[in-house]
Amino acid sequence: MTDAKNHLPLTRANISKAHEIIKPYIHRTPLLTNTTLNTIASTPQSVSDLVGTPWEGTETRPANPTIRFWFKCENLQRIGAFKARGAFHALIRVIDELGEEEVRRRGVVTHSSGNHAQALALAGKTLNIPAHIVMPSISTPSKIASTQSLGANVVFSGSTEPERTAVMKEIQEKTGAIFVPPYDHPDIILGQGTTGLEIEAQFEEAQQGKKALDAVFTPIGGGGLNAGVATWFSEAAKVGAKKTLVFGAEPSFEGADDCRRGLAAGERVSAVSSKTIADGLRTPVGLNNWAVISDPSKVAGVYSVTDDQIKKAMRLVLERMKVVVEPSAVVGLAVCLFDEDFRRKAEKEGGDEGWDIGIVFSGGNTTVEAIAALFGSK
Amino acid sequence: MTDAKNHLPLTRANISKAHEIIKPYIHRTPLLTNTTLNTIASTPQSVSDLVGTPWEGTETRPANPTIRFWFKCENLQRIGAFKARGAFHALIRVIDELGEEEVRRRGVVTHSSGNHAQALALAGKTLNIPAHIVMPSISTPSKIASTQSLGANVVFSGSTEPERTAVMKEIQEKTGAIFVPPYDHPDIILGQGTTGLEIEAQFEEAQQGKKALDAVFTPIGGGGLNAGVATWFSEAAKVGAKKTLVFGAEPSFEGADDCRRGLAAGERVSAVSSKTIADGLRTPVGLNNWAVISDPSKVAGVYSVTDDQIKKAMRLVLERMKVVVEPSAVVGLAVCLFDEDFRRKAEKEGGDEGWDIGIVFSGGNTTVEAIAALFGSK
Repeated sequence: MTDAKNHLPLTRANISKAHEIIKPYIHRTPLLTNTTLNTIASTPQSVSDLVGTPWEGTETRPANPTIRFWFKCENLQRIGAFKARGAFHALIRVIDELGEEEVRRRGVVTHSSGNHAQALALAGKTLNIPAHIVMPSISTPSKIASTQSLGANVVFSGSTEPERTAVMKEIQEKTGAIFVPPYDHPDIILGQGTTGLEIEAQFEEAQQGKKALDAVFTPIGGGGLNAGVATWFSEAAKVGAKKTLVFGAEPSFEGADDCRRGLAAGERVSAVSSKTIADGLRTPVGLNNWAVISDPSKVAGVYSVTDDQIKKAMRLVLERMKVVVEPSAVVGLAVCLFDEDFRRKAEKEGGDEGWDIGIVFSGGNTTVEAIAALFGSK
Repeated sequence: MTDAKNHLPLTRANISKAHEIIKPYIHRTPLLTNTTLNTIASTPQSVSDLVGTPWEGTETRPANPTIRFWFKCENLQRIGAFKARGAFHALIRVIDELGEEEVRRRGVVTHSSGNHAQALALAGKTLNIPAHIVMPSISTPSKIASTQSLGANVVFSGSTEPERTAVMKEIQEKTGAIFVPPYDHPDIILGQGTTGLEIEAQFEEAQQGKKALDAVFTPIGGGGLNAGVATWFSEAAKVGAKKTLVFGAEPSFEGADDCRRGLAAGERVSAVSSKTIADGLRTPVGLNNWAVISDPSKVAGVYSVTDDQIKKAMRLVLERMKVVVEPSAVVGLAVCLFDEDFRRKAEKEGGDEGWDIGIVFSGGNTTVEAIAALFGSK
């Protein structure tokens, strides 16, 4: 995208600047609480719940943490996902660097069949910059239609990585379009990091500044959201204040927990092939993102959950909170509800007072048919 | 319930009093807007959309109103529906009249398999009054479980009206429990009317007092919500201010539009037998409610929609607003989107400025299985 030497360093100050830049274009999504989910999280799992899990038979007394959730509803963000933050920030930075006229002439390009496609289409439409989006021709018709309805030029490709890249190269050769990557870029990471800035501010407003959040969970796919939020919280808000711990969550199905596995092995996993229901989290962590996430002073841990646990958490959010989330959005909540290692940690470190945990609901782009496919009988 | 001579008259002042009384126990649910739904409502239906409707072939130019929606999210109310308002108000009024000790000794009773069951159970639990809920033994297990989890004594009956009444009588003879009806009672109507009070206040806050809502839609089942909201808006907020028109909406499937049919015939329809997907709206309008709704100075009109239109509106709310609603909640929205008579009226009376329309999302108590049954390919 932009030249490496012009990259902004990943700092809290640069996230504040990014927030100033994108504020007119994004929603300050609500930070919601829910008594029922707090009660469920603050009740020990039964010994029978643990049958078939890694904790079967190991716990005579399941963990009994006290947890209060603060749900950052990026499912209510523009285009239905946090991706709008990074796309607006990256596009505005490109314009600042190359000038509006040049960027308008050349346009921007990306490949995505998901939320980043719509995010860049929206940013392009808003700022009057042509956006070319390479989508696999087998993409869901509704996703193609909504990207087109945002004025983007959708170009179809095969579904493999080389096929997508080839079509993108072709567009770039013809138009000079500037590539805006979905996650592996500092400008994207800084944009997604504004989610952390808002969570901190909204929690302080709700608590009238009494304390900081104990922990924040985000999903990890490419890792832009987690790296951005971890960058924000890597410095405590006030001198002497408690630092908020940032955690990541991934689906474990068919090895989609590449980040967790990479951390355990001490080396980034660079390829993933998983059909987890959390379809936004099937990508491996990017290089820039890995540099942040693998720094234990920034990210305190990455946990994984099964697709069945994702479905359970999604059901609770739809039925009890009455809020529509996509499967990728609830992996952090699922860790807090079902992972005994994390729950034991929260019990121990939270003590009697318990933990206030921010959960980023990263997106809500699903359909009633997709919900039916997940939960219908048959 | 309470003796007739002690009934509070249905006035705006008594709704204000009801609001003071129940405020500590209920949520002030948000009043949300949504650009996408405004755009859809403010775009004419295509001539082909009207094929198979009463307007097929009658319109050379489908109506083209300008509509801004204000969604009152009672799906986010306690127990997931507006019914909490009426139940708390009715129970507190009984306690005020008979004394806490007597009501605690006798308890309260109702018959309901729906949201009123949970509402009265919650009010009883909160105020420490025993609540007996007669539910048909064929009720959904999840509804039985949630009513029981609110501490109510669930007693099973057959599913016909005489069977339910017989079981209720039995409980009353044994315990002296006081009947709290689901909708046909002034205390219930006044409680539900607090929804109107909040919509008006929240719209004024959002608009900084510039103008009043042009119209408000509520669903009509037993009619408590519509009669209450119509009572609230039957007097304009300020002298000389524009009066907000109140409309009702019903499902038409298998005659569930008893209120609309009754108004056309000049006589209340007293029995309904419909399996509309809007399961909260299968009841005929109550007597007290009919007295308000059939008064054209209070309710400006009642419209009906098909189950297919309800499904279309529900899909839009879930997929675009990311908010979970039950089918009954969206009948008003469906009228605004699909009923050419109403849309023509909004176009004509709203003019260039358009109409600001409040839509009460009455409840969100559905399950992922129910959504799957509605939208799955099966």
